[in-house]
Amino acid sequence: MAKNNESTEKYWIGFDLGGTKMRAVLYDRNFKPLSKKRKGTKPFDGQDAGLARIRETIDTVLEEADVSASALAGIGVGAPGPLDPCSGILHDLPNLGWKNVKLKADLESAFKCGAVVINDVDAGVYGEYRYGSAKGANCVLGIFPGTGIGGGCVYRGEIIRGETMSCMEIGHIPVVPEGQLCGCGNRGCLETVASRMAIASAVAAAAYRGAAPTILESAGTDVSKIRSGLLRTAIEAGDISVERIVRNAARYLGVGLATAVNLLLPDRIILGGGLVESMPKLYVEEVSAALEQHVMPSFRNAYKLNESSLGDDATVLGAAAWAAHALPARK
Amino acid sequence: MAKNNESTEKYWIGFDLGGTKMRAVLYDRNFKPLSKKRKGTKPFDGQDAGLARIRETIDTVLEEADVSASALAGIGVGAPGPLDPCSGILHDLPNLGWKNVKLKADLESAFKCGAVVINDVDAGVYGEYRYGSAKGANCVLGIFPGTGIGGGCVYRGEIIRGETMSCMEIGHIPVVPEGQLCGCGNRGCLETVASRMAIASAVAAAAYRGAAPTILESAGTDVSKIRSGLLRTAIEAGDISVERIVRNAARYLGVGLATAVNLLLPDRIILGGGLVESMPKLYVEEVSAALEQHVMPSFRNAYKLNESSLGDDATVLGAAAWAAHALPARK
Repeated sequence: MAKNNESTEKYWIGFDLGGTKMRAVLYDRNFKPLSKKRKGTKPFDGQDAGLARIRETIDTVLEEADVSASALAGIGVGAPGPLDPCSGILHDLPNLGWKNVKLKADLESAFKCGAVVINDVDAGVYGEYRYGSAKGANCVLGIFPGTGIGGGCVYRGEIIRGETMSCMEIGHIPVVPEGQLCGCGNRGCLETVASRMAIASAVAAAAYRGAAPTILESAGTDVSKIRSGLLRTAIEAGDISVERIVRNAARYLGVGLATAVNLLLPDRIILGGGLVESMPKLYVEEVSAALEQHVMPSFRNAYKLNESSLGDDATVLGAAAWAAHALPARK
Repeated sequence: MAKNNESTEKYWIGFDLGGTKMRAVLYDRNFKPLSKKRKGTKPFDGQDAGLARIRETIDTVLEEADVSASALAGIGVGAPGPLDPCSGILHDLPNLGWKNVKLKADLESAFKCGAVVINDVDAGVYGEYRYGSAKGANCVLGIFPGTGIGGGCVYRGEIIRGETMSCMEIGHIPVVPEGQLCGCGNRGCLETVASRMAIASAVAAAAYRGAAPTILESAGTDVSKIRSGLLRTAIEAGDISVERIVRNAARYLGVGLATAVNLLLPDRIILGGGLVESMPKLYVEEVSAALEQHVMPSFRNAYKLNESSLGDDATVLGAAAWAAHALPARK
């Protein structure tokens, strides 16, 4: 059977490579999704097997939509951890144990089309800028509290990034002087007080001392089990300590964000990630209040802050759209 | 007498509007300076007189080089304080008392050519990017400690700024928790410990208690008289307290800068302004050390830091070059 529309070659793959899941979406030229596939990343099978799974996932979405690989205009991948956006090499995938994965070259040789590899948070912010709640902004700053705290900025249509690395490390803005040791080696970074891991640790301690009964019942005192959904459930059930801990963390996000706003003066700020999606009202409320209190007074009315509107789709859609934006110039 | 080269219309005016001095330079198409003029700003004569002095200063450089106004391709102005780069209106000129000065419109009507008005620090960083020590950088971050602390960033050839305001307020990165009240209303901003005014206040107190004999002899305890050159002289004369105060301030610059680097990952960092020009070695040394200590470890070797190479010319040259960059697109 003839494949769809081979001559025009205007299909794009968006790919989100996560520590536990990978996800591919095939888009048409207007970025309408045609087919989607999710697979476990299975990091412990090693990186060659991982690359093969990435290719298989892309093959699957092509097959499902009956589109030939030769009809692909390009592939955009969002990936965590330090990577070189020029060479498309993933230096070190935290939680996966993969090192120096030549992902761009692998995809280009397998699918005979251009590929770009960018930071997953950058991809998410670009997705919101192109198709979500930051559409058309002059400068959009995204902040995604999760296991760590991701940040990204799209300025006049371009992702701000270093020559050979992504940047916008909002999670490492110092907010607590002589505070807790951060994974980066410094003290008191935003991540140490406002990431999901920081919240989960404080909540586990509260559960241990009997102050978070709903959490104690559902997750015990295991930080790895204290996820966003459980936090929301506990707050709804009246665990006051949990609410205080989450609000305190959200407030710190606003404090750190104020510093980033003083530098970049975004007209749009996007909050995203699992915590925010579980408790959007609480987050927008606390972050806005703390931000307003700490930002330069003359910048107070210059930005609009809201939650991500694309959710999980932001990264995969943003990666595909960035491929479309960046690839023609490179060819 | 026929004026030079009227038909090609490729002369540019660069203008630096300061609180005490204004300065115009006429450039040819290759940004070679042809004539220069400096005047006192005389802010107390009022803003209409001020606008007239600006026009006169430009007329003088045109006359001196025997170039007709009709041969001007455009005018670029660097000015302090909050301004709207689109409308070219100076909202509030600190130290001048002028409000809502429609500078762009005034210059365009007087000289019948396009004009752009940008923040003076942005202009200086752009000058360094185009013709100075940051030439060709992917991302250049400039920091200019003076009465306040100015910051600017040129990312891939574009000045980063808000839709209707300049930004990059590095002087308002918090570095001292619950520190001194800052003019912006917050506490412990970088400006409160690292600006020339912060240094002068600490040095005046040292002079008062007898710990800065060279300063006491030359400036007494008057902060307005404790300027960069005197500080250098005192350090050279062996006023240990003065050296400690300046080194401490420079170190804070590095601490604040680390936060900006974590967000923007510039490949080039430029230190400028009177303090740095008076003591470049001390500044580069202390700022580099503090920056290296506080920046994300993976970013440590990604930037090069040095002092401004254009000095006073950076703003006026950058303003003219920005006019050449920005004006054609607006016409």
